[in-house]
Amino acid sequence: MLKYQEVAQQIESKIQTENLPQGTKLPSVSELVTEYQVSKNTILQTLKVLESRSVIYQVQGSGIFVRRRKRKGYITLLENQGFSGDLTYFDVVSKVINVTIVKATEEVANNLHCTLDDDVYLVKRVQSIRGQILCVEESYYKMSVVTFLNESIAEDSIFHYLEKALNIHIGFSDKYLSVHKTKGEISRYLELPEDSPVLLVEEIYYTNTGDPFDFAKNYYHYEHSQFFLQG
Amino acid sequence: MLKYQEVAQQIESKIQTENLPQGTKLPSVSELVTEYQVSKNTILQTLKVLESRSVIYQVQGSGIFVRRRKRKGYITLLENQGFSGDLTYFDVVSKVINVTIVKATEEVANNLHCTLDDDVYLVKRVQSIRGQILCVEESYYKMSVVTFLNESIAEDSIFHYLEKALNIHIGFSDKYLSVHKTKGEISRYLELPEDSPVLLVEEIYYTNTGDPFDFAKNYYHYEHSQFFLQG
Repeated sequence: MLKYQEVAQQIESKIQTENLPQGTKLPSVSELVTEYQVSKNTILQTLKVLESRSVIYQVQGSGIFVRRRKRKGYITLLENQGFSGDLTYFDVVSKVINVTIVKATEEVANNLHCTLDDDVYLVKRVQSIRGQILCVEESYYKMSVVTFLNESIAEDSIFHYLEKALNIHIGFSDKYLSVHKTKGEISRYLELPEDSPVLLVEEIYYTNTGDPFDFAKNYYHYEHSQFFLQG
Repeated sequence: MLKYQEVAQQIESKIQTENLPQGTKLPSVSELVTEYQVSKNTILQTLKVLESRSVIYQVQGSGIFVRRRKRKGYITLLENQGFSGDLTYFDVVSKVINVTIVKATEEVANNLHCTLDDDVYLVKRVQSIRGQILCVEESYYKMSVVTFLNESIAEDSIFHYLEKALNIHIGFSDKYLSVHKTKGEISRYLELPEDSPVLLVEEIYYTNTGDPFDFAKNYYHYEHSQFFLQG
């Protein structure tokens, strides 16, 4: 980890552990230089990182201020769940329904840029937080990129496996949100009556070379999930 | 507008008008230098802007590629609606229900960092797209910042008015999303049966000095709205 990233992490965790509220004034650049024993340039880079992560904001001629003021229990929408992010704090438990190989439907082929009827992995899981059902996940993986998957892999973080074992580097993602009424299988897995409200989050993950390899449809339990977004 | 912003805008609008799909390879840096008659440094800044706006992605040793591949009819979640953003393309029409002065509830006081029972403006509007109801908006404005509002202002863009007439500079915003069943007034304004699914987007807008001045609760019609997010 580079020095400015290290300092950024230290400042961020200080804000969290001391629970500093929105608008708290932080030390000046020169004070931070002294405190962390690094160059001014490093601190400027640190502040840029913290600003882009919405941890702080800077007011010209006035100083550096704490931005984080997240409501508790909300899931951060921008971070890639598979990687790190807020969800890890909640102890998400994945229960695998099954891992199968299926033919790509038109919807899957469109989103994964593959051919209709190509074989794809389909992973179905129910994710829970502290015993409460969070979401039902239907995730399609393109086999030209994700060459192997099975149920025991799917019990842990699939993205961790893709990175570490298959050396797949995730580049970016698109997310589409819409609200529906639950039907059939989804109602059953969410343990909700038919026609309950549900948030569908469709996510397409790309490799760092721009190849879409994962198309996920996550159906969130409306009583157990809420989301957060900083802009 | 600075030169690199101008070039960024030209490249982005070219991608849009030519409808270039995801993954289309764009000219190299040196080709862009020739095409736009600007310095290499300007092009590098241009590419940085386009990358941060998720318009392109760069693959080391391979080139620059088109990223935009948005489904039609989706609302971009990260842009501040009041300002610009995708919604303007859809011809959103605001119908003002009323503009009143009310006492801040605990919820409003918490989100606007004001005192319980402080006077705040409450704007209620129904927003429609091509005759379809998009959302019901309940928006609270802190009077120490937003010193004046009325119904005729609320018929147009309130944020445009705040910027131009009151010289308020919007700094950043927080968004909270959750799904509920519609109740009472909200059902009626959305013209939906009681207990229909609804997406509630709560937004807190801050000035560029970090002062929260607008707390909005937007209830989106589940059949007429869908959202998009690039990460």
